[in-house]
Amino acid sequence: MTQPSSPSAALIGVGVGPGDPELLTVRAVRVIRGADRVLAPSSAVDAVGRAESIVRQACPGVRVERLVFDMGEASGSVDAAADSVVEGIDAGQRLAFVTLGDPNVYSTFSSVAARVRERRPGTVVETVPGIMAFQELASRSDTVVLQNTERLALVTALEGTSALEGALDDPSQAVVVYKGGRHLPEMAKCLAAAGRLDGAVMGELLGLPGERVVPVADAAEGPAAYLATVIVPPCGRQVGERSELDLSEPEGSRPRAGDAVRGPEVLGVGDEVPRPQAGR
Amino acid sequence: MTQPSSPSAALIGVGVGPGDPELLTVRAVRVIRGADRVLAPSSAVDAVGRAESIVRQACPGVRVERLVFDMGEASGSVDAAADSVVEGIDAGQRLAFVTLGDPNVYSTFSSVAARVRERRPGTVVETVPGIMAFQELASRSDTVVLQNTERLALVTALEGTSALEGALDDPSQAVVVYKGGRHLPEMAKCLAAAGRLDGAVMGELLGLPGERVVPVADAAEGPAAYLATVIVPPCGRQVGERSELDLSEPEGSRPRAGDAVRGPEVLGVGDEVPRPQAGR
Repeated sequence: MTQPSSPSAALIGVGVGPGDPELLTVRAVRVIRGADRVLAPSSAVDAVGRAESIVRQACPGVRVERLVFDMGEASGSVDAAADSVVEGIDAGQRLAFVTLGDPNVYSTFSSVAARVRERRPGTVVETVPGIMAFQELASRSDTVVLQNTERLALVTALEGTSALEGALDDPSQAVVVYKGGRHLPEMAKCLAAAGRLDGAVMGELLGLPGERVVPVADAAEGPAAYLATVIVPPCGRQVGERSELDLSEPEGSRPRAGDAVRGPEVLGVGDEVPRPQAGR
Repeated sequence: MTQPSSPSAALIGVGVGPGDPELLTVRAVRVIRGADRVLAPSSAVDAVGRAESIVRQACPGVRVERLVFDMGEASGSVDAAADSVVEGIDAGQRLAFVTLGDPNVYSTFSSVAARVRERRPGTVVETVPGIMAFQELASRSDTVVLQNTERLALVTALEGTSALEGALDDPSQAVVVYKGGRHLPEMAKCLAAAGRLDGAVMGELLGLPGERVVPVADAAEGPAAYLATVIVPPCGRQVGERSELDLSEPEGSRPRAGDAVRGPEVLGVGDEVPRPQAGR
């Protein structure tokens, strides 16, 4: 049961983004195409999950195996998924486990990887980052999430709005809410009470048929999808707020002595820059 | 000065990720290759910035124009960049403005886009999401950032550790710190004082020559690069914590009446799942 795995054996969690197959990274496409097996979570053996659907479009011809996760038997489902992975690892396979969004942010992958490592401690486990739903929602809704030194709180609302309410206590921070579709009407009430409804946007089924990207104020009449995403921009963004330009280390053209590892000094910033608001 | 722009004219902020050219999305590559002009921020006309370097590798043959941002004259630099963009918009061009990470998260792009919209209110402005540095750091350092209903605080430390200290007040939330390279030693002290040094990781120059991914405890002796990233995982992750599997809406195979827009009901979750911790 504990035979050493092949040097090439690996479990790779691959983020496939929120829905649009064009949001896969080049690295994700390469890893999926190079894998011996591609595994995707599914709610039933005959149900094409969202991650599988993305792979089918982004990497035509790649066969995807379904790992069934029964939400009423989560622990057993993770065990069964780990069984399938361990079988492949023992056979020396490179396994790509595809997952919505990013594999290190709210992903089933981390549970499966942990279970596999318990059984085969030497297993090589890697991840490939993926675009997260809030990033695509920001793009689709023309929402600047963060500027300068603004802060972000990323919370969930699966069981209610308490984490959201806590995050709203600070009006200067942006808030992103995941998994709150069921509680969208209550979320809208919280936002209204905090004076934060203006500018707040909701997206569901991003990149899929039936996609909806709307102001939260226009979607408060009922529940949205389980994986709905909400962005609440900071309020009180100041015109003339100090701007931190994101210039990065010039490479090669202006070497500085001793800078190979640490890069150049912090770049100073100067004049004030109005906030982006035109046309929003 | 206010001539109507061509219907094809557009300014598109394209996130190119933190450094590895393989982290561009398929959409980003398409938009860059299809643009009439590709613009990249730079600190000098003869300095190849990080975003330009990424594009040179990911899209060989594409010519990149530098927009010089003088950190001592930020507002004037944004004006000059907007001048260049407006000239292209007036000529009916599709302009890709490439930016590290994501164009809606701490990006110069939003300042430039706002200035362009002030001058040409009808300008079509779009963005293409990009992988953020903390996602690549999580991948490289094998760090699960968020599980279940954990929360994330994303803060900056350009001017000191006060935002970090505030975020550490809640031991159950993960913290990501951007732009804190200069203050890394003080950050390490804060983390140690809060009992959060264990598991905290730092990455700089991700995907570039001289990349460093290390525990914060091993990097506390001096400043890191301006764009260094730190991840502080939540403490007190419980074995047996309730798990939310990220199963998504099955598509096509199991249609439900009236579900085209809102998707299926929230999926229930059941048994407890141990946290991923083996081998970390």
